[in-house]
Amino acid sequence: MLGRLNHVAIAVRDIAAASNLYRGTLGAQVSEPEALEEHGVTVVFITLPNTKIELLEPLGADSPIAKFLERNPDGGIHHVCYEVDDILAARDRLVNSGARVLGSSEPKTGAHGKPVLFLHPKDFNGTLIELEQA
Amino acid sequence: MLGRLNHVAIAVRDIAAASNLYRGTLGAQVSEPEALEEHGVTVVFITLPNTKIELLEPLGADSPIAKFLERNPDGGIHHVCYEVDDILAARDRLVNSGARVLGSSEPKTGAHGKPVLFLHPKDFNGTLIELEQA
Repeated sequence: MLGRLNHVAIAVRDIAAASNLYRGTLGAQVSEPEALEEHGVTVVFITLPNTKIELLEPLGADSPIAKFLERNPDGGIHHVCYEVDDILAARDRLVNSGARVLGSSEPKTGAHGKPVLFLHPKDFNGTLIELEQA
Repeated sequence: MLGRLNHVAIAVRDIAAASNLYRGTLGAQVSEPEALEEHGVTVVFITLPNTKIELLEPLGADSPIAKFLERNPDGGIHHVCYEVDDILAARDRLVNSGARVLGSSEPKTGAHGKPVLFLHPKDFNGTLIELEQA
């Protein structure tokens, strides 16, 4: 079921400083920041040869990463995103196995304009997993 | 400087249970556990089309992931590993920019038999970064 690792998401307090760090110190290819108001984050994409890293900075009052940054003031790895061919089939397989899908269990449109679901970290070794229909 | 994402490492309490979860519920290709006594972990490799996930369970009294699991009892994403062409050149670039390398700053032989370094999470948005010479 699991396909490619689409991205690793890292929550940061200051996306300009983090971009400079990845571009300058680490010598990576880093995009300009993009404000995704409907997702409550500003995002920067770091393109690696085989996948990408997404830096996320909270945007607005109800950002989904605000609590994570309260618990992790320096920032940290927030989630991993795996691609699946069929997100509804993936959801049904997961729910049938007893795993919890966050929210309503209906896929939402993710930051890349594709259907996504998030899985409960308690059911996956403390790891927040996003599934994205490729 | 940064090359491929070599792997994402996830610390787990019970590698047999975590392997079953990834193999069964998530439908991934999961290796048999391998005890790496000199690294203080038992490791399982999950092969994705473009990279791999490594599940790590503490092994022995001085496991480098023991404290992480004390702080994160459910487990969690422990580090990301980026490939570099020349680990000594990477280290010198990092040190010259003021970033801290963990330990003696001399590369050690990592779990894949290649030279590795770890960078201080405080200098990289709370993210533990491993660099591996590809």
